Amino acid sequence: MEFRVFFPPASSSSSPSPVPALIYLSGLTCTPANASEKAGAARMAAAVGLALVFPDTSPRGLGIPGEDDAYDLGTGAGFYVDATAEPWIQKNENGQVAGYRMFSYVTTDLIEALRALNIDTARLAITGHSMGGHGALIAGLKRPDLFHSISAFSPIAAPTRCPWGVKAFSSYLGEGDKAAWAAWDACELIKKYTGPARAILVDVGGDDEFAGEQLRVRDLRDAVKENENSPVSVNLRTHEGYDHSYFFIATLVDDHVRFHACALGLVEEEGGTE
Amino acid sequence: MEFRVFFPPASSSSSPSPVPALIYLSGLTCTPANASEKAGAARMAAAVGLALVFPDTSPRGLGIPGEDDAYDLGTGAGFYVDATAEPWIQKNENGQVAGYRMFSYVTTDLIEALRALNIDTARLAITGHSMGGHGALIAGLKRPDLFHSISAFSPIAAPTRCPWGVKAFSSYLGEGDKAAWAAWDACELIKKYTGPARAILVDVGGDDEFAGEQLRVRDLRDAVKENENSPVSVNLRTHEGYDHSYFFIATLVDDHVRFHACALGLVEEEGGTE
Repeated sequence: MEFRVFFPPASSSSSPSPVPALIYLSGLTCTPANASEKAGAARMAAAVGLALVFPDTSPRGLGIPGEDDAYDLGTGAGFYVDATAEPWIQKNENGQVAGYRMFSYVTTDLIEALRALNIDTARLAITGHSMGGHGALIAGLKRPDLFHSISAFSPIAAPTRCPWGVKAFSSYLGEGDKAAWAAWDACELIKKYTGPARAILVDVGGDDEFAGEQLRVRDLRDAVKENENSPVSVNLRTHEGYDHSYFFIATLVDDHVRFHACALGLVEEEGGTE
Repeated sequence: MEFRVFFPPASSSSSPSPVPALIYLSGLTCTPANASEKAGAARMAAAVGLALVFPDTSPRGLGIPGEDDAYDLGTGAGFYVDATAEPWIQKNENGQVAGYRMFSYVTTDLIEALRALNIDTARLAITGHSMGGHGALIAGLKRPDLFHSISAFSPIAAPTRCPWGVKAFSSYLGEGDKAAWAAWDACELIKKYTGPARAILVDVGGDDEFAGEQLRVRDLRDAVKENENSPVSVNLRTHEGYDHSYFFIATLVDDHVRFHACALGLVEEEGGTE
């Protein structure tokens, strides 16, 4: 698994003080290149002293039948879940499970690798775009011990109720156990969330071509209402004139980096480093 | 020929006031996508009220033999010259010359197209990267009436004396008339320049893998010295730790946009919009 890291000035894998980090999960078809080259997040991350981590979106080259047949399943489309259905997981001779286990990768293997790079893994935040927005939401909601703040750009907010999500979950989790799907759906997680308070920042473009059928971002606010005294709130902002592209992300990325820097105590709520 | 335009807020092709523009010429292999998606120039351009224009790097699909055989000749590698040698130009039945004429394209056809988009073509500046840095330098030096300021990232500064340039000029301009090459070499143009004063901003990475053999940026300062009372000066800055990539451009792009905004009278030299 490849990933990219941006270290803010005066921090690096060999500097004395571990540096906090924002993990950015990318969308369908992406590699670590897309966001690290096109989101423009490094400028603000440098200003606030935050590292940026760009993981890949799936395992690659496992040789699983069909892994390269569609843009929205298999390679580049891991959906940040731990698959439970064949052929996406396989047991080796020792009974260990391997394959499409992106949730475990992001929340364990990747964290170990970051610690070795002198990232302060006690100060992590998570964000993402589209499929990666879904990934950020579920990772943050399932592991509040690991991620201190959560945001998302144009997330697939209700994967159990949209075509992309239904296709992916049917394959990775199997059609037989739809109850298990809820564990990987941000809205379902919000309804039952009992962890520490989280104010989630979600931005979406008013002209996002996927907003209606695929993203369903308003479902997040409905889910909050279903959780009495919800520790989760969702600041959902629709930006007219913007689509699903990286131009949208680049326009809003400073806000998200500062949002996480505030949550991690790197800058004050108002004013700050600029 | 395709190109992309970023309009600053409150300006567009249908707004009442024409908006000044910075033309960005890209390097080898690029399309209008690379810089518009990866340079991160829009943020500052929005702040100072400058449009950004991203032309292509060559004609495409002309069917010229060999046009797709190499990354550094033909498609994606027009070098911003007007070819004079076959097969890169051809005369039609009316005696009109067509083909690889990127200089004419950038300085005439493109300008006409921009005027139709409500760009103020009396307030233009030009920059570029690598091959496009070369293009910006020669376009600015040959057409000071058109471009009020010039900058470049990691330019091919002396194409008549580097492998990329010699290969391209041999093909586009012919090996027989090397005297004609000087008209397309920034250093040769600086030596003989007699136009209005120009202070050119040039940034290059200290770890640029092409700096030594291909770019020869220091030759620009030598050329200034050979022009007695030169109206041209070159502010050449080497940034240690940076290579030839768009990460370098994204780091310095705010400086370049502000530099051109100052030259066009959009912001004050010090302070300004931020």
